[in-house]
Amino acid sequence: MTLTVAIPIFDQLTALDCVGPYEVLSRLPGAQVHFVAAEPGLKRTETGMLALHADLALEDLTAPDVIVFPGGFGTRALMHDEQMLDWVRTAHATSHWTTSVCTGALVLAAAGILDGLEATTHWMALGLLAEHGATPVSRRVVEQGKVITAAGVSAGIDMALTLYGRIAGDELAQAVQLGIEYDPQPPYDSGSLEKAPPAVVELLHARAAELV
Amino acid sequence: MTLTVAIPIFDQLTALDCVGPYEVLSRLPGAQVHFVAAEPGLKRTETGMLALHADLALEDLTAPDVIVFPGGFGTRALMHDEQMLDWVRTAHATSHWTTSVCTGALVLAAAGILDGLEATTHWMALGLLAEHGATPVSRRVVEQGKVITAAGVSAGIDMALTLYGRIAGDELAQAVQLGIEYDPQPPYDSGSLEKAPPAVVELLHARAAELV
Repeated sequence: MTLTVAIPIFDQLTALDCVGPYEVLSRLPGAQVHFVAAEPGLKRTETGMLALHADLALEDLTAPDVIVFPGGFGTRALMHDEQMLDWVRTAHATSHWTTSVCTGALVLAAAGILDGLEATTHWMALGLLAEHGATPVSRRVVEQGKVITAAGVSAGIDMALTLYGRIAGDELAQAVQLGIEYDPQPPYDSGSLEKAPPAVVELLHARAAELV
Repeated sequence: MTLTVAIPIFDQLTALDCVGPYEVLSRLPGAQVHFVAAEPGLKRTETGMLALHADLALEDLTAPDVIVFPGGFGTRALMHDEQMLDWVRTAHATSHWTTSVCTGALVLAAAGILDGLEATTHWMALGLLAEHGATPVSRRVVEQGKVITAAGVSAGIDMALTLYGRIAGDELAQAVQLGIEYDPQPPYDSGSLEKAPPAVVELLHARAAELV
């Protein structure tokens, strides 16, 4: 049995948004993870320093079982990109799971998928999510039926492990957590707006262009 | 001031090993992260489902400030690849920091860089590390002067944040942690050999080909 996972990528994406979930979901029994794009080929991250390859065009995979929409500055343009929004709506109509990481949620919202649902995104974009029909929630992973949204960047790993458990059961999901040795021990405790010292939040806002 | 970071990539790499550190270190003020390879071009992960692009050849960047060697099955071949080992030795001679994630440590060990040092790697490879001159330590991040090794896959994020703090100070490192919203909340507590239930460890060994 094959389970197809579609991860749309695009220029100005955040690489960890999609590579975290890829690393987890590619270990689903029978899974095929496909990186898709309007035009197949190399897609560069916001920094320009890394390019990932989209092997398939959007039209090559219109009915995936799972959608993982990553974030990045590139999502701003995609929110008005009718080709991408149509693909998302069509894929969502038959998907088993529709998910996002970080500002990927803004594209789901622009496609109308988050209308009336609780959802999350990068903490800096929660307000924008509200403007597009969703009820923003400041939580790491938000599950609403088959729609699962994750907070910023690294939250995609937690979201994907949650989804893995839903699909294949807790025991296999735990085995994958052990396989990728996901026993996080960050050297600081500054990963959320609630936990970061005020001076750090200020610093981030002042130097957002460089640091976000 | 530019700080150059070299991340060697190769076929059969583990994507998260390098993308975690990339996501952190690319936010160092003045940093340029370069993905390098013996032959520039696309390098596929172990699953074949994702390709990252190496923009530069090894000889284009022989004196980076920081080396991050990622892991993956491909490291087995690299341990006997004289071109890569020579590059690593040469780069290490002038680097400010030489680091690895997961089985990337095996390549540093094969190059002689870990001789007599404590080091870590994926928990499944700790024995192999001992056979190549290092003193294996079961810790998430191991610092030995300018040499920093990280445990499996996801540990590269913790390693990179540690290194970021050493280079640019704790406050900026905390701001980056907030920027990538690294406030891990895995749905299970099964990320290390000590924490995983015995049945999960057994399951992982039994289905390692699929899950690791």
